[in-house]
Amino acid sequence: MNIKPLKIILIIGDGMGDRPVKELNNRTPLEVANTPNLDELAKQGVTGIVDVISPGIPPGSAPAHLALLGYDPIKNYTGRGAFEAIGMGLSLNMGDVAFRCNFATVTDDWVVIDRRAGRYVSEGPVFEKVLNSLKLRSAANVKIIFKHSIEHRGALVLRGPGLSNLVSNTDPGKNGLKVLEAKPLSNDEASIRTAKIINEFTLKSFEVLKDHPANKDRVSRGLLPANIVLCRGAGVLPHVKSIKEKLNLKATCIAGVPLIKGICKALGFTVLNVKGATGGLNSDLKAKAKAAISVINEVDFIVINVKGTDVASHDGLVKEKVRMIERIDEMVGIILNHIDLDSLCISVTADHVTPLSYRDHVGDPTPILISAPTIVPDDVKEFNERSVLKGGIGRIKGVDLMPLLLNYSLRSKKFGE
Amino acid sequence: MNIKPLKIILIIGDGMGDRPVKELNNRTPLEVANTPNLDELAKQGVTGIVDVISPGIPPGSAPAHLALLGYDPIKNYTGRGAFEAIGMGLSLNMGDVAFRCNFATVTDDWVVIDRRAGRYVSEGPVFEKVLNSLKLRSAANVKIIFKHSIEHRGALVLRGPGLSNLVSNTDPGKNGLKVLEAKPLSNDEASIRTAKIINEFTLKSFEVLKDHPANKDRVSRGLLPANIVLCRGAGVLPHVKSIKEKLNLKATCIAGVPLIKGICKALGFTVLNVKGATGGLNSDLKAKAKAAISVINEVDFIVINVKGTDVASHDGLVKEKVRMIERIDEMVGIILNHIDLDSLCISVTADHVTPLSYRDHVGDPTPILISAPTIVPDDVKEFNERSVLKGGIGRIKGVDLMPLLLNYSLRSKKFGE
Repeated sequence: MNIKPLKIILIIGDGMGDRPVKELNNRTPLEVANTPNLDELAKQGVTGIVDVISPGIPPGSAPAHLALLGYDPIKNYTGRGAFEAIGMGLSLNMGDVAFRCNFATVTDDWVVIDRRAGRYVSEGPVFEKVLNSLKLRSAANVKIIFKHSIEHRGALVLRGPGLSNLVSNTDPGKNGLKVLEAKPLSNDEASIRTAKIINEFTLKSFEVLKDHPANKDRVSRGLLPANIVLCRGAGVLPHVKSIKEKLNLKATCIAGVPLIKGICKALGFTVLNVKGATGGLNSDLKAKAKAAISVINEVDFIVINVKGTDVASHDGLVKEKVRMIERIDEMVGIILNHIDLDSLCISVTADHVTPLSYRDHVGDPTPILISAPTIVPDDVKEFNERSVLKGGIGRIKGVDLMPLLLNYSLRSKKFGE
Repeated sequence: MNIKPLKIILIIGDGMGDRPVKELNNRTPLEVANTPNLDELAKQGVTGIVDVISPGIPPGSAPAHLALLGYDPIKNYTGRGAFEAIGMGLSLNMGDVAFRCNFATVTDDWVVIDRRAGRYVSEGPVFEKVLNSLKLRSAANVKIIFKHSIEHRGALVLRGPGLSNLVSNTDPGKNGLKVLEAKPLSNDEASIRTAKIINEFTLKSFEVLKDHPANKDRVSRGLLPANIVLCRGAGVLPHVKSIKEKLNLKATCIAGVPLIKGICKALGFTVLNVKGATGGLNSDLKAKAKAAISVINEVDFIVINVKGTDVASHDGLVKEKVRMIERIDEMVGIILNHIDLDSLCISVTADHVTPLSYRDHVGDPTPILISAPTIVPDDVKEFNERSVLKGGIGRIKGVDLMPLLLNYSLRSKKFGE
């Protein structure tokens, strides 16, 4: 009797699920893609569907990942900004309020010309210094920490007493609209004050950036000036136990994008920085597979997020989504070739369905497979949205996934006697 | 990319589900009935089963409809009387307590001879006037509003401060039993007082009706006298958001019976009065289909209740139930022929299972289908209790239906970012 716990690998194809695609003769990318490894896992294991948050509810990526990692998304989702900020390498304290930021281009009366200031803002480090030395009248006792990450992206952290994440965005979300005023979403002092700080920060960012020599230089080179910082997704760290405390798992995250890295850091995962893992269509998935193989002996649980499927979905790129799925399959193949299958519980799913026909998240259940030597397999032999409807897992909720993986990996604790 | 929201039509075959019927060679009415349109929808869509309230719990029609329309039946079911009363055309205020009423025939010592006073009480309007002018000692500051609807049926509304719906019925539910004393179901003053009012109303109804000339006339014509009013189903309006506020749906109800109309009115639906829609076996379902077709362009959501299947079930009428299901199929056929299927999310289910062999509601899950161009179909090609067990919806709860329909009609809001 082998009672040694199995290793757990959870692969999340971001936005991987889909609906019938006209260009694919009403089949889905998962149905069309050549996925011998996923199909083999489906054959050996059980399949089914997951309501990641709740039936019919389109999940944001952050609460979706919380749920799939075992954390109740309704209790523990405290805004995206905090996860983004720590994913970018900022360290956050409890109580800090963090925002996702964009360098943007606005007119003098703050109509947004480009939310991304042309997307490539190589002057980010220079602007970062200027923004970090801002003095705000509304922010006595509050430290302002701004960090540029890549392209037009950054994060803003407010650190101090009496702050709140219940404030609305200044980013209008579309070009051609005016910059929004941040508003308190609750009537308490902290929310009112935080909104004031953000509005003053926005104003000051415009004042110091609009005539900055680096922007003059951009304009002289025919580039859009990065003349304002837009904020959105106010968030704080959730009060949660680490995954080690909660599930007794030594856990590692392999992901390209800051959000997923940030969520995993907040939950106490070690986060690997894999060279070439970009979170885009060009991400080096073989490098991700190799990273997983290299650490599997030292950890209990590895979660691998591949963002490219979602990127292709949001952009409506049919072929690219199919190809990305095939590349996920190849990544899985490498892992399966290098890790002893008798010691492995592996699961593949999506954090949400992003149909190519809709280009945004929907509330369809996501397909899932779980394969482990401990499982009684069902009859499903392929992994796609249609085949798994007959699967042995049936229909589960996102938060139920980790307990199932713990169970099949011989790591569960009995409830009662 | 079509991101125009789809229209939603939900068809509820009341008590439509069944168990194996001996007279049908242990098949169910849905299996035996000829239902090409329902089968086609099952083929194009997904199917499954619904625990309308919770597994194994036989749903009353009122909480069942609340659940299927997206309202938690456990929090929001506040008694049937209020829904019946507004379904009959009474307007209710918050705090009003309403009862379903029967004109009945009792002996001098209040043994019930016929709970329905022979069912046809054409003198209802006359009696209504008498009852509305009653003065009750127990009911200072309380207005007594009685309304006769059809046959032996009516509603009683108590309007005033300090009332409660926590009182028991005076209707014993069967002939041959004594009229019951209304009892407070809670120890508070309001419940104690409301029970007193109902008991005094019952007594006074007997006093004014027993020797009423219209009853003497009934007796002289060989009819049973309608000599008392029996009350049951004390209810108040639930504190809920309208369906427009809650789900952002402009919603319309097409139903024959006051209960369903009343529930939908309470939830802010517009309620169509369709000529010939009786709620009985003779209901004009083609007229219902035409009513739906005529309003579909102006609304987002139409719910159609067909009561005849439940009526046949309660009366144990096998052939009539099969035929009623076929008539529902014909109604669906008319709708499908007149509404653009590319713009439609349609669902068919039952509010509960009423087996012909049991003649009352049971807690079996109800069969469901959902068909929309946004759905990845399962392999089920027929719509009945047996076939849907293999369906891709799996097993859902009643309250999860509306979120799923919103999702497949491209009307959902994302949870988190």
